[in-house]
Amino acid sequence: MKIERVTAGMSIKRSVDAGTEDQQRTVRAIIEDVKENGDRALFDYTEKFDGAKLYSLKVTQEEINEAYEALDDEMIKVIREAADNIAAFHAKQKRETWLYTNEDGSILGQKMTPLDSAGVYVPGGTAAYPSSVLMNVMPAKIAGVERIVMVSPPGNDGRLPAGVLVAADIAGVKDIFKVGGAQAVAALAYGTESIKAVDKITGPGNIFVALAKREVFGDVDIDMIAGPSEIAVLADDTASAKEVAADMLSQAEHDRRASAVLVTTSQELAQAVARKIEDQLMSLPRSEIARASIDDYGAIYVAGSMKEAVQTINELAPEHLEIITENALELVKDIKHAGAIFVGRYSSEPVGDYFAGPNHVLPTNGTARFAGPLSVDDFMKKSSIIMYSKQAFDKHGKKIAAFARLEGLEAHARAIEARND
Amino acid sequence: MKIERVTAGMSIKRSVDAGTEDQQRTVRAIIEDVKENGDRALFDYTEKFDGAKLYSLKVTQEEINEAYEALDDEMIKVIREAADNIAAFHAKQKRETWLYTNEDGSILGQKMTPLDSAGVYVPGGTAAYPSSVLMNVMPAKIAGVERIVMVSPPGNDGRLPAGVLVAADIAGVKDIFKVGGAQAVAALAYGTESIKAVDKITGPGNIFVALAKREVFGDVDIDMIAGPSEIAVLADDTASAKEVAADMLSQAEHDRRASAVLVTTSQELAQAVARKIEDQLMSLPRSEIARASIDDYGAIYVAGSMKEAVQTINELAPEHLEIITENALELVKDIKHAGAIFVGRYSSEPVGDYFAGPNHVLPTNGTARFAGPLSVDDFMKKSSIIMYSKQAFDKHGKKIAAFARLEGLEAHARAIEARND
Repeated sequence: MKIERVTAGMSIKRSVDAGTEDQQRTVRAIIEDVKENGDRALFDYTEKFDGAKLYSLKVTQEEINEAYEALDDEMIKVIREAADNIAAFHAKQKRETWLYTNEDGSILGQKMTPLDSAGVYVPGGTAAYPSSVLMNVMPAKIAGVERIVMVSPPGNDGRLPAGVLVAADIAGVKDIFKVGGAQAVAALAYGTESIKAVDKITGPGNIFVALAKREVFGDVDIDMIAGPSEIAVLADDTASAKEVAADMLSQAEHDRRASAVLVTTSQELAQAVARKIEDQLMSLPRSEIARASIDDYGAIYVAGSMKEAVQTINELAPEHLEIITENALELVKDIKHAGAIFVGRYSSEPVGDYFAGPNHVLPTNGTARFAGPLSVDDFMKKSSIIMYSKQAFDKHGKKIAAFARLEGLEAHARAIEARND
Repeated sequence: MKIERVTAGMSIKRSVDAGTEDQQRTVRAIIEDVKENGDRALFDYTEKFDGAKLYSLKVTQEEINEAYEALDDEMIKVIREAADNIAAFHAKQKRETWLYTNEDGSILGQKMTPLDSAGVYVPGGTAAYPSSVLMNVMPAKIAGVERIVMVSPPGNDGRLPAGVLVAADIAGVKDIFKVGGAQAVAALAYGTESIKAVDKITGPGNIFVALAKREVFGDVDIDMIAGPSEIAVLADDTASAKEVAADMLSQAEHDRRASAVLVTTSQELAQAVARKIEDQLMSLPRSEIARASIDDYGAIYVAGSMKEAVQTINELAPEHLEIITENALELVKDIKHAGAIFVGRYSSEPVGDYFAGPNHVLPTNGTARFAGPLSVDDFMKKSSIIMYSKQAFDKHGKKIAAFARLEGLEAHARAIEARND
């Protein structure tokens, strides 16, 4: 890996797949088909794209039971413990309705209400991650969403992976459907005979899923469209090169387009990490993917000072940030833009991916400048409450009518004055 | 107005303008032009679309001073008081960073950080509302956004309305630019010589502005795309027909496509409101607009019971809801979907449009099912904090590695195990 000096205005080299016009047309056609033909379209696409001929989309209790049998008991306990940790962290995010009364007797407030329903998309194949099931479902559960629906494309044997089913069951999902792709997104947005429409769709997916989510946005809410995963490590000479290299590779193995960046004040660490990455790469099962990611989107930058290094991190606005320095916790206050901040040597990124509790659905692609982790807030909405007393109305009515007339909205002024007569 | 019986599965008749392909092409061309030619493109479009030949885009202190002189002192005081009320309400929304320590010594938390910058779009012409300036800027200000930029198309005299400039100055905006349309959105998203790019764009606009916001979304954040305004009034026989009619018309005068709906348990009120609307319509300056809105998107529904009426409101998911009934405050808990809830006879909707404090930027078009008012949250973002202790790491490391291997991500497991050696 090349080692470079940091310069002003740095950004992570990113690869965004916006989809071709052809893919967009395909997605629109699939959505129209599902709107028109409902379940029939879902069965047809599942046979065509997933090679599975199904007669019922819904996962049965028997399939759930078989999934539990397929996993060993220790693993099931780990998934349960992870779910509990995620629940505990997200419970702290939950906000309650509040009201307050002003001196003039007016009452103002903010009512918090869970969404009625949410749909979680879980990708198929090797990207069918039980951890993603937990991370998408638990915030909705904690928010109080009554109906949570999960969709995922089956293998050509017509089944979903055991880990995914067990995670869904532990998270409390009752409605799991074996359907994926743009057709699953369309079903969640508009409903079919089997699948009732939901208010919000979350979860990662391939380009067809991403395009379909963009297409249905507005009719239902969606989460952010995720890009390839990223990690930035901020380290000084107290960090272990072996550990930093291992953490960077854990990101690189996700995807050829994943990005792993080290920003360090230590030229020595920079060189040692570059060597360790080469060493560790060789023995990785997914070394081909990790190699491509490191070559195309990896970088090691040396900064002249910690201040300069922190500034560089804020310019990068990474999805994941590890801080492995002396006094790492003190640096957190200077970090403005990062999806999740892993502090100190024992907070290797997989700690957060699987277990600690905070969400692993994070803003990619520089969007940490304005967006954060998936949270309970994503599954609740606010309504303002305004209750004016007669006293408040008498005191302020004239001013309100005057403001309305400044804007040329006479009927607004008259609505106020209708109370005076 | 026709009076109908409520039925299950009701929705507000809505008109959504998605834009033609021609408009989309125009918007994309404008965005490309601004990206390429910067200020020069902005000057050209401002001359072409707004009929104003400008040599500088930025509003000067002199223009601000002139705007203050153009308004009377009482009006300026009202704008200041409204700004104070908006600030007070939004201050209650602001959330602080939190951290907690678990028994195993791990520290978890959520860091709240304001966005670095935000851009507010203010429409031109008769839709140049000083109240919208306050409602968009104050939440950003309270959030702590350092750089707030405002854009608005000038009249053909090259000026912005006095009320808009005074509101912007009171709200504390330093950078006001005389440019509108898709070109202004492009400038906010990508920057030009005069206008530095921002992280988020909010504010209403015409179809070109809406399409441009959709186009730049992802590169920067945007607020919801607003549809025509809506009000639903939930009333029983204690309500005054005159007041209900006046409130419905205050919504109808906004836009031919605005919607005003009454849901009532009282057949008598239904009939009286229908008559009062006819009476009051005649003398309104904007009667032509209000008439079109009432005819095409107005409705009066009679429900058999209050329970049925409330259910209907939840199905409608209106932007604004007025509850004018006995025990109105008690009904609030049953309302699941509404952008803002106005409780009791003295909470006529204009009270909230201008003055009370809660935001008037609200979810339209049924999106109150999943979205809420513009808030301080829209101008801050979360970052998760994870700090594992050695103790926590030693306790949980093996489980984390096992979870990673269940997902086939060997490098994740090895990143954990690199700490063991």
